[in-house]
Amino acid sequence: MAPKAPKTAITPTREEDYPEWYQQVVKAADLAENAPVRGCMVIKPWGYSIWEFIQKKLDQRIKDTGHENAYFPLFIPLSFLEKEASHVEGFAKECAVVTHHRLESKDGKLIPTGELEEPLVVRPTSEAIIGTSFSKWIQSHRDLPLLINQWANVVRWEMRTRLFLRTAEFLWQEGHTAHSTAKEAEEETLKMLEVYREVVEETLAMPLILGTKTEREKFPGAVATYTIEGMMQDRKALQMGTSHYLGQNFAKAFNVRFTNIDGDVEYAHMTSWGVTTRLIGGLVMVHSDDDGLRLPPKIAPKQVVIIPFITDPEKSEVVMNATKDVLAKICSLKYNDDSIRSHIDQRDMRGGEKGWYWVKKGVPIRIEIGMRDIESGTVTLMRRDKAPKDKMTVKIEELSTVIPKILEEIQSNYFAQAKAFRKQHLHEDIENFDQMITFFTPNNSDKPEVHGGFVLALWCGSTECEKKLDEHKLSIRCIPLKQRKKEGCCVICDQKASLDAIFAKSY
Amino acid sequence: MAPKAPKTAITPTREEDYPEWYQQVVKAADLAENAPVRGCMVIKPWGYSIWEFIQKKLDQRIKDTGHENAYFPLFIPLSFLEKEASHVEGFAKECAVVTHHRLESKDGKLIPTGELEEPLVVRPTSEAIIGTSFSKWIQSHRDLPLLINQWANVVRWEMRTRLFLRTAEFLWQEGHTAHSTAKEAEEETLKMLEVYREVVEETLAMPLILGTKTEREKFPGAVATYTIEGMMQDRKALQMGTSHYLGQNFAKAFNVRFTNIDGDVEYAHMTSWGVTTRLIGGLVMVHSDDDGLRLPPKIAPKQVVIIPFITDPEKSEVVMNATKDVLAKICSLKYNDDSIRSHIDQRDMRGGEKGWYWVKKGVPIRIEIGMRDIESGTVTLMRRDKAPKDKMTVKIEELSTVIPKILEEIQSNYFAQAKAFRKQHLHEDIENFDQMITFFTPNNSDKPEVHGGFVLALWCGSTECEKKLDEHKLSIRCIPLKQRKKEGCCVICDQKASLDAIFAKSY
Repeated sequence: MAPKAPKTAITPTREEDYPEWYQQVVKAADLAENAPVRGCMVIKPWGYSIWEFIQKKLDQRIKDTGHENAYFPLFIPLSFLEKEASHVEGFAKECAVVTHHRLESKDGKLIPTGELEEPLVVRPTSEAIIGTSFSKWIQSHRDLPLLINQWANVVRWEMRTRLFLRTAEFLWQEGHTAHSTAKEAEEETLKMLEVYREVVEETLAMPLILGTKTEREKFPGAVATYTIEGMMQDRKALQMGTSHYLGQNFAKAFNVRFTNIDGDVEYAHMTSWGVTTRLIGGLVMVHSDDDGLRLPPKIAPKQVVIIPFITDPEKSEVVMNATKDVLAKICSLKYNDDSIRSHIDQRDMRGGEKGWYWVKKGVPIRIEIGMRDIESGTVTLMRRDKAPKDKMTVKIEELSTVIPKILEEIQSNYFAQAKAFRKQHLHEDIENFDQMITFFTPNNSDKPEVHGGFVLALWCGSTECEKKLDEHKLSIRCIPLKQRKKEGCCVICDQKASLDAIFAKSY
Repeated sequence: MAPKAPKTAITPTREEDYPEWYQQVVKAADLAENAPVRGCMVIKPWGYSIWEFIQKKLDQRIKDTGHENAYFPLFIPLSFLEKEASHVEGFAKECAVVTHHRLESKDGKLIPTGELEEPLVVRPTSEAIIGTSFSKWIQSHRDLPLLINQWANVVRWEMRTRLFLRTAEFLWQEGHTAHSTAKEAEEETLKMLEVYREVVEETLAMPLILGTKTEREKFPGAVATYTIEGMMQDRKALQMGTSHYLGQNFAKAFNVRFTNIDGDVEYAHMTSWGVTTRLIGGLVMVHSDDDGLRLPPKIAPKQVVIIPFITDPEKSEVVMNATKDVLAKICSLKYNDDSIRSHIDQRDMRGGEKGWYWVKKGVPIRIEIGMRDIESGTVTLMRRDKAPKDKMTVKIEELSTVIPKILEEIQSNYFAQAKAFRKQHLHEDIENFDQMITFFTPNNSDKPEVHGGFVLALWCGSTECEKKLDEHKLSIRCIPLKQRKKEGCCVICDQKASLDAIFAKSY
């Protein structure tokens, strides 16, 4: 018997093998690939273009909230990193270290020479180098608040890497601010968390839970770390961004001081916050299906792709002209304050093959135009949020209203679907540790793969309890900002507890 | 006798000490500063914002010409670099080399551990890593042309650094393309040179000479290097960008092959081209005067700054309301297809001090509004291309026509002034090497500083002659694309020659 042809564009399906499905979706959409350099990735044009749309939106919001972009060095001298003890401890195990500044040929092989007096670390994050600049820039309360953002590459020497989710080098933005009061710095931390929520939920259509990290999970050197956590389709959590209230820790380490209004010298109160190319991994894992990528229209590099169907070569010009007219019409429309991004696929390839190509790339709307359509003054339209074979016929004169409307529907549908999925897999009924372990353990039922999710339960707040999660590969993802204000027992130790926490497996 | 107060906002003046004047203009405009890391710079918000406007314009042109952005790893394994012999030779002496991937505390000091099996070079340029990807991506002539661009940071371990002009780390874009024929690759090289000319001349208002580099000055590994050269106000040349025709050199080194239409396997024909944050150094040196930076309106982060003059505190609200009305009016105007970027300077500071602050930052138009202006329905307007004390009175209702007109005039004036300066200092009358040396040597006349410039003269084409320039710190900047087609004698060896070349000192 011949092997059964796959029924989906992506093999394996999510149910069959989620991690491998992820790799295949990334590959089929041509988003990125592993670089020949250990742990690094090449972000290919389709993936990079998504990053550019994320950047554009986020950069606008960062500027709207009063921040200015700047650029700081890639290299951090060891002595700078050493200044904040817990900070360096957090990053020392995964640093790329530059020790030499030239190469010489010896016995036909290049070897590093010109040893540096002080080794340089390739920035894993820039608190140390930016803190050093801030200490020069800030003298008086009139220099505050200082609100800076940087778009950059950073390096963390991860041993197990996965495209977008965890790579040795990744791209990000990192905000760094200094304030004259603790209150103002705390407000800034939450303001930027809200900017992240807005962009991730409203533009990337991924629902989030906002909360604080536990002492054990917070950023090395921070007083408090706030996080945005999303649920992937394997029901694991992905941390999609963090905002840190640094208190005066870094100000003391890097001597960031100011003269206050009374003439006294104080240490500044600081924050830092960042999101990375990991968001693209989140997009893949939250929205995609067994036919490949599904992109929220607001960040799709192309929102509408038009495929001309030429069956009779003599009619080729007629079809192409009609196609170009439709393109012009669509490009003149607006969606989300921008001109709609449309494209004609003119490649020398079968129409069906083209259709699947764009399905796998996640384009929200495909339009087919053939002689039959032209004769009836219509086009054939397919939506990425419906089944691939689901076609609608739309009159050409109605495209101007239909296209923006469908784009908005797809954007909302993706968000609603992800939200419904999360709701379905967020459990509030787990009452003790045994139940929790059972819940997170694959069983032998018909669907062994359906287990786990987010558990919202009470936690007593002790690190002892938290550590018991480790051997089960579970963790507290966050203490949600929205608390149920319930009294009860810790789901781990059964002692009195009133703090809501989200428990889950995670990336 | 008390020292004379300086008559200019910048000390020293260009005439007194050009290199120091440059540093002081950069400092007074708050563009950038030396980082505490050897050879690196911190690009401050005003400088980075200029870079963002350059990026926006150039990125649009790069995309308009069919290129797509992507991102490749920061690190290049030594073995990749070794593949193109002249390429590695060109960069080996100035590479940052990563040799370890973690830090350990030993006797209270951090030391690098986890030695890498193969050291990694921090990219000085990305031909080696991108060539490796291209060899995977390209199989058939249908995969060509492949047109990729990257915005990134690169590192070259320069020993003598100067803000923007030469730093160990800098920001740039690097285009990398592959084509099926030599002709197409050569056309691409020239097309991107023209894109650079357009952006640098029309947006940055800096006149250029386009030409090819000599064999000795070309990019390591290229067949031919094209350059855009500008004249600074000390009459030295600045190379502002290059476009390389790589032939099949890198295709052979990195095995970039394709099956042509006849089914035969061929090596691809490649190009690469880049411009860097050095352009900002060029802007400073071409346009600025002894009062500081002068920014062409098209890339000025703020084009119009409004300064309210409040002499009577009781009238404060009246003045502020009038100021806000003027701001709203200006922001609703367009210049160069964008809304005009305007700003009210409300800082608690004397009006005159504010005025000089914006003069030094290079803002094209300043507007002052006081009670007297309000009573007469006018504002006081100052242009950065006129003397600081030169004020005009403009009726408020005329601002809508006057502001865009003046911005365009300033943009054209800067270009015209720079072009006139270059014309004045481009000499075609130097006939032999003695005259050339004299021309480039400071003399004891009244103005010892006025010497040198660009010499356009004939060159026989020999490397021997070219090398004679070295001891005089001169070089051939380029063989201009526009040749005079003159027969005559080489300005160095007096032998027969017909090739026009530009001789100059340079950065």
